[in-house]
Amino acid sequence: MDRVPVWFMRQAGRSLPEYRAVKKTHTILEVCRHPDLAFEVTMQPVRRLGVDAAILFSDIVVPLQGMGVDLDIVPGVGPVFASPIRSRADVDALGPLDPETGVPYVLETVRMLASELRVPLIGFAGAPFTLACYLIEGGPSKDHATTKALMYSDPATWESLMDRLTEAVIGYLRAQVEAGAAAVQLFDSWIGALDEADYRRYALPWVRRIMAGLEDLGVPRIIFGVATGELLEALSEIGAEVVGVDWRVPLDLARKRVGDGVCLQGNLDPAACLAPWEVLRAKTEEVLAKGGGRSHIFNLGHGVLPQTDPAALERVVEVVHGWPVG
Amino acid sequence: MDRVPVWFMRQAGRSLPEYRAVKKTHTILEVCRHPDLAFEVTMQPVRRLGVDAAILFSDIVVPLQGMGVDLDIVPGVGPVFASPIRSRADVDALGPLDPETGVPYVLETVRMLASELRVPLIGFAGAPFTLACYLIEGGPSKDHATTKALMYSDPATWESLMDRLTEAVIGYLRAQVEAGAAAVQLFDSWIGALDEADYRRYALPWVRRIMAGLEDLGVPRIIFGVATGELLEALSEIGAEVVGVDWRVPLDLARKRVGDGVCLQGNLDPAACLAPWEVLRAKTEEVLAKGGGRSHIFNLGHGVLPQTDPAALERVVEVVHGWPVG
Repeated sequence: MDRVPVWFMRQAGRSLPEYRAVKKTHTILEVCRHPDLAFEVTMQPVRRLGVDAAILFSDIVVPLQGMGVDLDIVPGVGPVFASPIRSRADVDALGPLDPETGVPYVLETVRMLASELRVPLIGFAGAPFTLACYLIEGGPSKDHATTKALMYSDPATWESLMDRLTEAVIGYLRAQVEAGAAAVQLFDSWIGALDEADYRRYALPWVRRIMAGLEDLGVPRIIFGVATGELLEALSEIGAEVVGVDWRVPLDLARKRVGDGVCLQGNLDPAACLAPWEVLRAKTEEVLAKGGGRSHIFNLGHGVLPQTDPAALERVVEVVHGWPVG
Repeated sequence: MDRVPVWFMRQAGRSLPEYRAVKKTHTILEVCRHPDLAFEVTMQPVRRLGVDAAILFSDIVVPLQGMGVDLDIVPGVGPVFASPIRSRADVDALGPLDPETGVPYVLETVRMLASELRVPLIGFAGAPFTLACYLIEGGPSKDHATTKALMYSDPATWESLMDRLTEAVIGYLRAQVEAGAAAVQLFDSWIGALDEADYRRYALPWVRRIMAGLEDLGVPRIIFGVATGELLEALSEIGAEVVGVDWRVPLDLARKRVGDGVCLQGNLDPAACLAPWEVLRAKTEEVLAKGGGRSHIFNLGHGVLPQTDPAALERVVEVVHGWPVG
């Protein structure tokens, strides 16, 4: 690679007027379930922004539907579940995921994209801890307290839930790669709610199992979470080639925590994209400088904010691509 | 001190049945505005839990009402503002705070408590950055993006807002100490949304000014924020005697970041109080061990969760008080 590669989490969707046009007549889940729409929305930022990768337009809760979970994505709220999981019986009622029958539209979208794209397609899934948070809380949560309470008080049920989600995620990501995804990202967005000891006890073993379950496919595996400053060392040990970093930890410090064995991905503050260009450019260059120009994939530290002007992202891409590599 | 002192953020309120009884007939703001009610609610955890300090029952938005801001605290949502601050004119419309006329009920509550309590009373205020987040967003926010956008794009308006809030906070905290508060805590809950460079540029100077403006009073000054792992070194430099730490950073690591010049406060995960006693006891003891038994005030890493059984907090206090000091 003769330049620092760049893509943006949530580059497809929310901030793009051409996506909002699609959303006028379709819900998020409708877009996810219709390959022609999901294809189009995935392509939009690739056409517009000049990024070096596409990421499948979907949502981490989509495969849960394929496991028989009754859920909806409510605008302004997020995923909402009809029956939160709170007991062993609830866990036992969770079906396995057969990607070809449970989420055929996802695989069809991946196939369509893989044959059309000139940049790599990143497939993705939610990681078991983060999926468990949604399933147990029944929706978004500030503190994930119900999840932690279950995890502390009923470890057998917790482990059973994590086992089932892990099996589903492995199958789901394998199917995406077999359909043409060139890399995969595991979104473990809420692990920053755990201290390192709890992360190692209650979440890491299952993520490691997922990474091992994908190893023979030979595609780059990316792990990402928010507020993971104290977890970076642990994240460097799970078997992923790439560790995402949110904007709180400068990349030079993140590098000290992860060592030299992994590539870092990140970590511009998404809110910086709302700043005047001189501020945004300086912040972009600071991320590049701290990333050192090697073993670094440029990205935001979290998803693109809905109010972002796509033109700002285009200019960030230009600065990244003009940066001298190490 | 022959034992590690302990109190809990949000020990007054939410989790206590005797508080919920008061809430059946009064809103939060009514409780804050009536000294007899605020006195009673502040005393409740002191009577029940055996903690070593009381903290005034109030809300960080209360002094904003004394500055003429139209706001309400909506159950299940949080503070909501009729007219968010978005321009220099909005900032200029913000009145100064005269505590004796703007929030006389707070000072009366402090006076009543100081004469009754046998443990120190901690007064408090929101810090300027966190207050600015609420004022600009118009309520709670996940990403504080509008706040950051204003801060980046119009630094003069930002600084003017921070100046006004700083003056108000200094006067408010001085008045609380003069009315009998024995210590003060500055809640800068949302600073963890900033990276260190932004924190030092856009928030720290005003917090330092507040600490300097209280120095002659000779009372301990506590600073607290959430997700501040990368800000701990900066927080140790602002002039506060005590730096609060959330549960993400073990106290031995936090100590390395802050040096030996400050006392640490924290940092049990509030969700641990929902765990079975053997898990909660082990986590309590781990915090004590990492705190080293000296220069440590035991607390949670954030506020008591509403679903907490007060009996769990009582048992935590017993463990802390039985811990051998260093």
